[in-house]
Amino acid sequence: MNLRILGIDPGTVRMGFGLLDTNGMDATYVSSGVISCGRKLNLNQRLWKIYQELVQNLESWQPQVVAIEEPFIPLASSYNEEFKTSVRSVMAIGQSVAVVLLAATSLGIPTSLYTPTQVKRSVSNYGRGSKEQVQEAVKLTLGLSHPPEPLDASDALAVALCHLQNYHVSKIRSSGTSGDRSTL
Amino acid sequence: MNLRILGIDPGTVRMGFGLLDTNGMDATYVSSGVISCGRKLNLNQRLWKIYQELVQNLESWQPQVVAIEEPFIPLASSYNEEFKTSVRSVMAIGQSVAVVLLAATSLGIPTSLYTPTQVKRSVSNYGRGSKEQVQEAVKLTLGLSHPPEPLDASDALAVALCHLQNYHVSKIRSSGTSGDRSTL
Repeated sequence: MNLRILGIDPGTVRMGFGLLDTNGMDATYVSSGVISCGRKLNLNQRLWKIYQELVQNLESWQPQVVAIEEPFIPLASSYNEEFKTSVRSVMAIGQSVAVVLLAATSLGIPTSLYTPTQVKRSVSNYGRGSKEQVQEAVKLTLGLSHPPEPLDASDALAVALCHLQNYHVSKIRSSGTSGDRSTL
Repeated sequence: MNLRILGIDPGTVRMGFGLLDTNGMDATYVSSGVISCGRKLNLNQRLWKIYQELVQNLESWQPQVVAIEEPFIPLASSYNEEFKTSVRSVMAIGQSVAVVLLAATSLGIPTSLYTPTQVKRSVSNYGRGSKEQVQEAVKLTLGLSHPPEPLDASDALAVALCHLQNYHVSKIRSSGTSGDRSTL
């Protein structure tokens, strides 16, 4: 069983990506990095640039699945400036996730969404830890000589590893029956 | 001055659209309706279907601007089931707005975002009113014999009228200087 997984740490200014191959047992690092737009572009131009680059990368890498972290923004509890900022942040997350879903679906590639806690638990065995700890865990898990840089890229690799772990769990649960495409 | 405005009432299951032409004085109804996905499709398929239909319609209608209502969802103030539902609603709005922004930007068409209060004020001179009242106001403003159906379509026409009103205001403010594409 060979599987190529693209992990995505979404954002409307910077989007981390991490590409892994697996033979069903081990995960092999393929590539990682960041699609960066800079804040000078307006929202429309940023979303469109990320969409185009993602489609181009997906065509080139041909992963079987795209795993996406869906961050959870804690919302302020009363109606004030902080509250409005956090609503805008949730909107921005919705927008960046939509760009990834559209890019993958345009090429018929299935997607899986994971919470930050699921992602952290998959590399550290507990659901907490700083981005730097995630980075170190990704380095160790993939047997890399250097930690993957920048942090958005190591986060994206952790998302791909999270999908791989969930894929294994779903395989064990299904008692060794052949994989269903919807669980990729 | 001839301008064609596409108004959009976004959603991830149903998206209302309303198309108007204006000669700078009067607004003329061109078309309105709903892009509907049904709840049987998953989120990826819905977003992709809406994106594709929007791009097709934009190519066919060639509006100079797309005006989008950005709904505001009141968030529950404490962390409970209602709160989680409202966060998901904000995410969904972000996703549906992103699809419209991407579709317009892919064809180089500028966009403008309006709040529900701005939209209602533009057709009723005050920022409140039910969807049925907006529907009746749209019918009167455009001199239609029947109210535009369904409500998502009349809402989208109201968004287009809101853009037209704001365009006039910006023209008056700029003392008759020629229009800037960014203010379309």
